[in-house]
Amino acid sequence: MCGIVGYIGAKQAQNILLEGLSKLEYRGYDSAGLAVYNGETISVNKAQGRLSNLEEKLAVRSLPGVLGIGHTRWATHGKPSDENAHPHVDSTGRFAVVHNGIIENYIQLKEELMAKGHTFQSETDTEVVAKLIGDLWNGDLVSTVQATVSRLEGAFALGVISENEPDKLVAVRYASPLVVGIGRGENFIASDIPAILKHTREVYILEDGEMAVLTKDQVKLMKVDGTPVEREPMHVSWDIETAEKGGYDRFMLKEIHEQPKAIRDTLASRIKDGLVDLSNEVALSPEAIRNIEKIHFVACGTAYHAGLVGKYVLEDLARIPVECDVASEYRYRDPIITDKTLVVVISQSGETADTLAALREAKKQGARVLAITNVVGSSVAREADDVIITWAGPEIAVASTKAYTSQLIAIYLLGLYFAQVRGHKSEAELKEIISHLGQLAGLAEQVLEYEGKIAEFARSIADNEHLFFLGRGLDYAVALEGSLKLKEISYIHSEAYAAGELKHGTLALIEENIPVVALATQSSVFDKMVSNIQEVKARGAKVLGFAVEGDSELQKSVDEVITIPKTIDLLAPVLTVIPLQLFAYYACIQRGYDVDKPRNLAKSVTVE
Amino acid sequence: MCGIVGYIGAKQAQNILLEGLSKLEYRGYDSAGLAVYNGETISVNKAQGRLSNLEEKLAVRSLPGVLGIGHTRWATHGKPSDENAHPHVDSTGRFAVVHNGIIENYIQLKEELMAKGHTFQSETDTEVVAKLIGDLWNGDLVSTVQATVSRLEGAFALGVISENEPDKLVAVRYASPLVVGIGRGENFIASDIPAILKHTREVYILEDGEMAVLTKDQVKLMKVDGTPVEREPMHVSWDIETAEKGGYDRFMLKEIHEQPKAIRDTLASRIKDGLVDLSNEVALSPEAIRNIEKIHFVACGTAYHAGLVGKYVLEDLARIPVECDVASEYRYRDPIITDKTLVVVISQSGETADTLAALREAKKQGARVLAITNVVGSSVAREADDVIITWAGPEIAVASTKAYTSQLIAIYLLGLYFAQVRGHKSEAELKEIISHLGQLAGLAEQVLEYEGKIAEFARSIADNEHLFFLGRGLDYAVALEGSLKLKEISYIHSEAYAAGELKHGTLALIEENIPVVALATQSSVFDKMVSNIQEVKARGAKVLGFAVEGDSELQKSVDEVITIPKTIDLLAPVLTVIPLQLFAYYACIQRGYDVDKPRNLAKSVTVE
Repeated sequence: MCGIVGYIGAKQAQNILLEGLSKLEYRGYDSAGLAVYNGETISVNKAQGRLSNLEEKLAVRSLPGVLGIGHTRWATHGKPSDENAHPHVDSTGRFAVVHNGIIENYIQLKEELMAKGHTFQSETDTEVVAKLIGDLWNGDLVSTVQATVSRLEGAFALGVISENEPDKLVAVRYASPLVVGIGRGENFIASDIPAILKHTREVYILEDGEMAVLTKDQVKLMKVDGTPVEREPMHVSWDIETAEKGGYDRFMLKEIHEQPKAIRDTLASRIKDGLVDLSNEVALSPEAIRNIEKIHFVACGTAYHAGLVGKYVLEDLARIPVECDVASEYRYRDPIITDKTLVVVISQSGETADTLAALREAKKQGARVLAITNVVGSSVAREADDVIITWAGPEIAVASTKAYTSQLIAIYLLGLYFAQVRGHKSEAELKEIISHLGQLAGLAEQVLEYEGKIAEFARSIADNEHLFFLGRGLDYAVALEGSLKLKEISYIHSEAYAAGELKHGTLALIEENIPVVALATQSSVFDKMVSNIQEVKARGAKVLGFAVEGDSELQKSVDEVITIPKTIDLLAPVLTVIPLQLFAYYACIQRGYDVDKPRNLAKSVTVE
Repeated sequence: MCGIVGYIGAKQAQNILLEGLSKLEYRGYDSAGLAVYNGETISVNKAQGRLSNLEEKLAVRSLPGVLGIGHTRWATHGKPSDENAHPHVDSTGRFAVVHNGIIENYIQLKEELMAKGHTFQSETDTEVVAKLIGDLWNGDLVSTVQATVSRLEGAFALGVISENEPDKLVAVRYASPLVVGIGRGENFIASDIPAILKHTREVYILEDGEMAVLTKDQVKLMKVDGTPVEREPMHVSWDIETAEKGGYDRFMLKEIHEQPKAIRDTLASRIKDGLVDLSNEVALSPEAIRNIEKIHFVACGTAYHAGLVGKYVLEDLARIPVECDVASEYRYRDPIITDKTLVVVISQSGETADTLAALREAKKQGARVLAITNVVGSSVAREADDVIITWAGPEIAVASTKAYTSQLIAIYLLGLYFAQVRGHKSEAELKEIISHLGQLAGLAEQVLEYEGKIAEFARSIADNEHLFFLGRGLDYAVALEGSLKLKEISYIHSEAYAAGELKHGTLALIEENIPVVALATQSSVFDKMVSNIQEVKARGAKVLGFAVEGDSELQKSVDEVITIPKTIDLLAPVLTVIPLQLFAYYACIQRGYDVDKPRNLAKSVTVE
């Protein structure tokens, strides 16, 4: 996920592009860059870090000119750095390219181009596109781009400019979003409408396989094979804030709805021939994987709750004993670590101070460290021995949603990969689980359809100051996460309990009309869970139960039921957590608090 | 801890003795028995289990007579059974004895008596006393008892009757409590006043080394060497309920105050030459101890919190990796167990259903199981491979206090013993820790002196419906227990947090005047803890801090400070938890709830 912008017109491009990028930072913010044609040549200025770093550089060396493209990056191929930032240029420096998406066959293309004498400055897949355009240059920009695109596999939105035809800006869309903005004597491209909304409300939304050729006075749409496309521009009536949130009221809601995509993206390219292949990311040899005697999951907050699921998953699939620790405890408690200990750290931002410190402590003591993080090139990703990236894209809301479900996917992949190597499960068993894993994104879409019902229940309990979540086994791990979501944004004092522990103390708090969210998705402890639900019902609690589709038993014991589509017990957490996120969201809305920026909390906790 | 009663007079003894025992059940209830002189011989009737079992037996075969003794047992030597129940008789059956306490030199005496041809029916230390009286019989009951007592070492209160002198009831006190009740034409003995309060309010409280010789019309007090003792009887003005609680308002408060004794008793006889010796209780060979690769602590509620301390202790002292699980989760999650796994189950009652099921599951999977329990002969004690008994005595209040601190002592003993055998620490280091362990009971007495200050703070926050506990490392484990105490009796929704995790979510709940109890007794994380305290202070929380004596830093950051006497970090939980128990107690009192019987909860959870 990255953001791209482009401008052609009569005004100075630099500030228009910068402003546009500032509206796209939600799509990535690890580096940024501009390429502007100054009347003679294309100049490029790029900087690692937030957009402000680029602005500082431009203050020293500005890029004059009226044609340009810009990019804000969320690293996929290659760490965040000046070199890996976009735009990228061809070997002559006469073509510049910005790109959002992934070129899947870039290694093959890169080898081909290197064999022809092209040298590469970056680790990105994007640079391949720029070099290929230069290589295929046939004297006509549009047909050269068409020829280039025909060689590319993957998902991409491209913006291309050239010194050779400085009256044109060429854009292509394949599975990554791209809009064209129509101005007066100027035209625009962008990954998303907010980037251009200040200048125009008339836009074309490109469809897959379409390209646009912009001059300052005209926009021509065509298919990539050259067939012209005719359609009316769309008039945008949203305000800019709504536009940034993709039409959702809040970033959190948008990110909750992005989960099917995040699940798909995190799975994609890691399943080969029906089995998990992490060998590109996890450098541990099969022998080293077989030698692991102990795994420590170490993380904070929501990522810690993902680790709790990880304990079940790794113990079940790979039969490796797992311990789970909050990072702020782990680093100070002198954990027992040997060279056969694998420490798995989980951090959305990859900059969580406690997690990073725990990682360093573990490495110092001789552990191998594997990181699960959402940010390529983050400190955690750089310092770990192995990294599994979650492809959730930037998460803006403080309350983590899509990062958590993506972390779960990464954990399943890890468990399945280790199980394969250690031979604990048969290939047939593993393929069966993996086929269920492949269905999760679609099932997550189904779960999102219960939004209305969940919102209703959330509104009905929003006046309560106390609430309890109950579950057993994996449901308990999910209950902890559901409780954290609720408390961090709605400020309702909620607490999650292993249902069997209730009667050892907390049952004392259950009184008439206390709302209880009871998860009963795990078939092996379903009956026990129903008994626990009856314990709280007997004390007058108002119970929202979560059951698996087709189970009609629970309905008799609870006040309301949310049904989770059927999957295997092991994978249920991915589906169960989504209604809990929505529950927290609507409770917060009902109470009138700021969903995306809860009091006292920050998105990425870079202090102890 | 057991309860004894005795009667001599003109009424039928049986029902007077039974009524007396019913008031002493708080001192033990695993078996009971009576011995009554019927005019010719002494008849004995005993039954395992609660007093009602004995009553059923007596309904079938009653014991007529006006002289008798009775006993309700809390097993120490030998499991609860008909045979081990008191009274015990000598080899001729002409002398019967009830006993509360421990005869330390009973093995030596038993061997001596067996060599002389006496045979033993029970596993108890008490039977030695009965046999010895018979063996030393010199024609005079008082001087025979005196001769017997001179051979005994340990702590004991005795009641003795004999067919040979049926006009006498002889009682002796050495370190175990005993009172004599003065009636009209009848006299009584009992372990505690409530047992006789229905019949008289005039009592003698025997002192150590004193004995009493009762006839139906007279009570003679003397030292055990025969020197007469003269003093006025005491008039009891308490009501019977207060008397049962030893002068305290509630059982919980009584049990909190019994902790120094429980700590001492649990340590006693397990420290030899400055080192821990558990070889009598833990049959694991040194080689087996060295081979342990993993310990699982498994328990519920408060005992689970003791297990959390156990994780730190065993990992620190013996460097064995430890996992802690709530029993209701453990039994269903297919834990990874090998023959090198030691499972340590902890249960006050030894009958906790989930813990017992976990124990059975662990054994089935090949683990060795060690139990820490307060009840000799309980299911858990019987089924475990090894047992460490906590000598806290019966715990009546539902909210566990002295059982918890005794469990901690058992855990320290286990950790030190394993450390010795595995050679992880030097003898000098171990002796240093053990010497601190020996001081804990005295320091616990000091902590109890802060009762007034704690009560005051508890009253000041009792109107709040939310409260948070914070700690790091061992303080976090204690915070969890403090929070559980508060919620189970005061119904304040309290929650404990690892202080470093606050900023990953729960900090959102901290607002103006929310009370926070912050534990900062661990020197290694003291500075970090102070930072966390400042995070909550900055949001307006009202903070009660716990610091170690001599530390003046914390005072600057909090609203109130409770000071814990100085000990080593590892042992601090035993002292820190006591004020938290008092805090919960006084918050409950202030809110007007029933301390000893909180709503929805039972003392021993024998259902899932």
